[in-house]
Amino acid sequence: MTERRHDREFVRTFFTSPTAVEGEADSAKMLRRAAQLRGMQAPDVWVPDNEDATAPSMRDEGAENIVEVVVEHGADFPGEIHPRMVWHRDSPTTRYQGFQHMLEIADPERGAIEHIDGFVIPEVGDIDDWKKADEFFTIVENEHDLEEGSLKMSVIIESGQAELAMGTLREEMGKPTNNLERLFLLVDGEVDYTKDMRAMTPTGELPEWPELRHNTSRGASAAGLIAVDGPYDDIRNVEGYHERMAENRAKGMLGIWSLTPGQVVEANTSPLPPKTGSWLLDIDGEQVELEAEDGAEVYDGDHLSLEATDGGYQLHIDGTTRTLDADELREELHGMTSYVPSMDDIVDSMEEFEAAKEAGRGAIAMEQSATLRIGGTEIDISKDRMWDEATYQAAMTPINLFQDVYENRPDQHEELNERYGADVVSRAMEVGL
Amino acid sequence: MTERRHDREFVRTFFTSPTAVEGEADSAKMLRRAAQLRGMQAPDVWVPDNEDATAPSMRDEGAENIVEVVVEHGADFPGEIHPRMVWHRDSPTTRYQGFQHMLEIADPERGAIEHIDGFVIPEVGDIDDWKKADEFFTIVENEHDLEEGSLKMSVIIESGQAELAMGTLREEMGKPTNNLERLFLLVDGEVDYTKDMRAMTPTGELPEWPELRHNTSRGASAAGLIAVDGPYDDIRNVEGYHERMAENRAKGMLGIWSLTPGQVVEANTSPLPPKTGSWLLDIDGEQVELEAEDGAEVYDGDHLSLEATDGGYQLHIDGTTRTLDADELREELHGMTSYVPSMDDIVDSMEEFEAAKEAGRGAIAMEQSATLRIGGTEIDISKDRMWDEATYQAAMTPINLFQDVYENRPDQHEELNERYGADVVSRAMEVGL
Amino acid sequence: MTERRHDREFVRTFFTSPTAVEGEADSAKMLRRAAQLRGMQAPDVWVPDNEDATAPSMRDEGAENIVEVVVEHGADFPGEIHPRMVWHRDSPTTRYQGFQHMLEIADPERGAIEHIDGFVIPEVGDIDDWKKADEFFTIVENEHDLEEGSLKMSVIIESGQAELAMGTLREEMGKPTNNLERLFLLVDGEVDYTKDMRAMTPTGELPEWPELRHNTSRGASAAGLIAVDGPYDDIRNVEGYHERMAENRAKGMLGIWSLTPGQVVEANTSPLPPKTGSWLLDIDGEQVELEAEDGAEVYDGDHLSLEATDGGYQLHIDGTTRTLDADELREELHGMTSYVPSMDDIVDSMEEFEAAKEAGRGAIAMEQSATLRIGGTEIDISKDRMWDEATYQAAMTPINLFQDVYENRPDQHEELNERYGADVVSRAMEVGL
Repeated sequence: MTERRHDREFVRTFFTSPTAVEGEADSAKMLRRAAQLRGMQAPDVWVPDNEDATAPSMRDEGAENIVEVVVEHGADFPGEIHPRMVWHRDSPTTRYQGFQHMLEIADPERGAIEHIDGFVIPEVGDIDDWKKADEFFTIVENEHDLEEGSLKMSVIIESGQAELAMGTLREEMGKPTNNLERLFLLVDGEVDYTKDMRAMTPTGELPEWPELRHNTSRGASAAGLIAVDGPYDDIRNVEGYHERMAENRAKGMLGIWSLTPGQVVEANTSPLPPKTGSWLLDIDGEQVELEAEDGAEVYDGDHLSLEATDGGYQLHIDGTTRTLDADELREELHGMTSYVPSMDDIVDSMEEFEAAKEAGRGAIAMEQSATLRIGGTEIDISKDRMWDEATYQAAMTPINLFQDVYENRPDQHEELNERYGADVVSRAMEVGL
Repeated sequence: MTERRHDREFVRTFFTSPTAVEGEADSAKMLRRAAQLRGMQAPDVWVPDNEDATAPSMRDEGAENIVEVVVEHGADFPGEIHPRMVWHRDSPTTRYQGFQHMLEIADPERGAIEHIDGFVIPEVGDIDDWKKADEFFTIVENEHDLEEGSLKMSVIIESGQAELAMGTLREEMGKPTNNLERLFLLVDGEVDYTKDMRAMTPTGELPEWPELRHNTSRGASAAGLIAVDGPYDDIRNVEGYHERMAENRAKGMLGIWSLTPGQVVEANTSPLPPKTGSWLLDIDGEQVELEAEDGAEVYDGDHLSLEATDGGYQLHIDGTTRTLDADELREELHGMTSYVPSMDDIVDSMEEFEAAKEAGRGAIAMEQSATLRIGGTEIDISKDRMWDEATYQAAMTPINLFQDVYENRPDQHEELNERYGADVVSRAMEVGL
Repeated sequence: MTERRHDREFVRTFFTSPTAVEGEADSAKMLRRAAQLRGMQAPDVWVPDNEDATAPSMRDEGAENIVEVVVEHGADFPGEIHPRMVWHRDSPTTRYQGFQHMLEIADPERGAIEHIDGFVIPEVGDIDDWKKADEFFTIVENEHDLEEGSLKMSVIIESGQAELAMGTLREEMGKPTNNLERLFLLVDGEVDYTKDMRAMTPTGELPEWPELRHNTSRGASAAGLIAVDGPYDDIRNVEGYHERMAENRAKGMLGIWSLTPGQVVEANTSPLPPKTGSWLLDIDGEQVELEAEDGAEVYDGDHLSLEATDGGYQLHIDGTTRTLDADELREELHGMTSYVPSMDDIVDSMEEFEAAKEAGRGAIAMEQSATLRIGGTEIDISKDRMWDEATYQAAMTPINLFQDVYENRPDQHEELNERYGADVVSRAMEVGL
């Protein structure tokens, strides 16, 4: 796995909050509130947003507010702080304004910059446009006697040009005339991307853009950066947010933009392994989670039912009945079930594999057993899976993420210990090292 | 949104017609017929096709026919005219033949070139192959005293090489030794692409190639060009053609190849907003359009029914019954319904947002209400959506397309006015300016 | 269609076997067994695997075993032999070890190299990493007086970097300081790719990675190479393996990795056209194969039934009944049916088209008729499809594959003749030449 380039190897949450709100006595109220979030409510990366979330007329005041609030709360904020500046590939005015705000916010005499980890640049174009932004970072660092390359730069991918630029990062980052090694997050911005691509849907809903997300994840992998998905607008739809995150994880995009502290909690916890394992039953291509009850895994839906008969079983699936003996039934259920391991299960398996490896064995079988209860009838099944070095390495991803979180977010220790128990946590911190 | 490089910002229809038909007394009959199409039957881009649609032995005659028919009808043809020449990345003979036909057709003494906007080059390979074609355009322009770069070049993407070339257009188009700024349309050619990729399906049906279409749309976005999807062979399947176009629009590919005047009509109207809005109900993942009847939106299918009870409602979905009060029912239906806005709705919302912006407000809520009637029982629901600058900009895409059409296609004014009413048309031409 | 660069134009099977097994008296036992496979059980490319399939401590012995077994059996092995070496983009130690093993195995005095066609390099990174491997091939060739470029190099694509590298192969392969023209197979390695991309799924199942497979197929097409999909772990799931291969073929990826001789048989036969044609009925988006019985194609499932009435027919679909006359019924069934042509059918159509072309006709209609029997009621339908040069060319892909197999694999002649009959085989070898 390609090593990421900065302290944080994983970023789960990218939380934007407006830097100034018009018509409020305290225009920095929402900034202050965000700065005081802690634990699962606090994001890995907090983005005081001086672009879209702040009205155009309020952006100078927004930059001032960033300085003020970060001076006040920055030292205690548990995540990284990356204000978003204005920028546009097609507007030198906007780019110059973004530069001026960076210069101002980064002035060490103002006292904010020591708590700021970098800046976020939206609406970037092709790679040469990224270099213009990078050059402004370098000038800001030079003017303010900061170490060259010390400010991280994250970009919002919201144009076809920027999507293509991600294909060249690996080679561009090595060139002597830029400091693109400062790059940190590649964040998809699907609303503006949709506009740039001129895409339309009948209801105005955003397209899913699977290829964009793949390319962002791949770009991050190839260049040692971190991929983050865009905002999920339908903020009351928690289930939809979770589905989107699950899809993203299957693409290697483990972080997502959050618009509310509620979304931050969901996005902080979603990529972590579950507390308890669970069995899934595949019903017509949909995965139904079975309920654990008195030691059995219970399905009581309408699509499937099971009866024990004299010589064996009758399995009813959507109106079709099949007569099977116990072995045939097990084979049938084998193909229909799968197991979602808990954190404890994963750690167990990794420890077991590490021990086997030390004893000179390269592959071992891991078994998972359960009693299924379908329509009141029970049957025992077991599934085994071969673990070799590659399986072990792949299983490391969630553990690496957990270890990264645990090291970087002491404010979440209490919640993590509560979730998993101190024993599992301490074993999870030991495996794979 | 990246500005496109030529007059037409949007091309809905790319209509090919054979340049010569063997065994016909008038081998240019189909050319003549195509040249006289008007209104919704006339395409944005008409492609007299001297490649695949014309037999190999008839291509010299085809080039002659193009000159003859364009001289006769070109001045009155309402769209652009872009004849397709022969070309192949692997055959210098074919490329030289294409060059000779261009030289001949573009001869000002023959009188056709003043009505011709460019040429279409099929079967291009990698970017250096595109440059060979571009060089022939330059020589043709030079030989015939046409302005350098004045002939537009469109290409058919029908090889893996050409798909990759689209990733480099933005930088190649700026180089001093080519005139690739003449590029206009990037057209997917799925039949030959399938062959080049060596893909096979059991029935011989074409694969869907979602990645190719994404990459073409992205290439167009990054380089200021226009993406067009390939031919839809099953010409009697109007519903299938519409589904393909809807999928394409969600990818930012707003234009499609048409093989018949009937397909031209469908493709000209399909990307335009509907005359009247409509409500959709999500039934098991499928969107069912509700029928408007006496002020209510009516669902009378089998999957869903609703009864009013004493204290509330009973909602039956596929055999499951849930008892809900009015608020719970509304919340449930909220998630299951969506609204497809009419042209009038879109213009309304844009006007409202523009007024709010002028009054200093950056975001406003747009509401959409309806009475649903499900199984005879009625309930009022309303949906609101926050509009900010980004929503406004994204909503501009269909309006930009409409404005582009209205400006460039006076022959479609009558049909557009009939469709929307003159008032909506004139307001649509005013918003966003 | 881009010509491939080496003898084999198509590779169906990429079969890996461990080079040494710990704890066995004969550590080369599995190598010996693989070397003696013949006919459909023998792969097009056999990969004695000195990387993942062999324990790290056994790799020197593995290299020795390769030499020994290839000397013994290589002359008679019917496919190509490409041992997999160790390599890692992040480890110079591993890369040097791979180089040393290649030097050793390729020593002509040992006698194995005359039967070895190339080597497989796993875990490659960006294009410069591929060049490091290529340089070692060149040195090995030079040290051992082999012709420069004569050893083929295949790579495993299992990182984002390598996926991006495939976009540049076409231009890199022409550069004077490398011998990348030796490239042969691009093989996806989804397990390690998943790790490199940091992707996670709840159950640990691999993501489908459709974009990776598209990009590999496209990379092969653009550079004249051959794309091969990764291993399918669930080795008892034959149906799943077939579905994966069918999906791959629709992407232009005709070869797949096999882990067992049983998988080799499936993968060798799967891309070949069927012995007999069959009709498919589309039931709710799923394709159901009809059973041929007494000259009729029979559907006897629950979703569809048909009754003849006085004036016409009643068609019941999932509880809905429609009254249709014979023509309406045919039109309805036309949209629901499709035909999977047999090898014989394909050859027939190609011969017919070739004759038409010789007679000066560019397009002809091919008809396919059948009697459908649905719920006991019969109706005749027929489908016709226009064949033009492009259809003909696309239909060539399975025939090209068959011809490539037949020429290169005499050991499969018997099975192929048994499958198709000698007459069809000999006609298939004649068409398209």
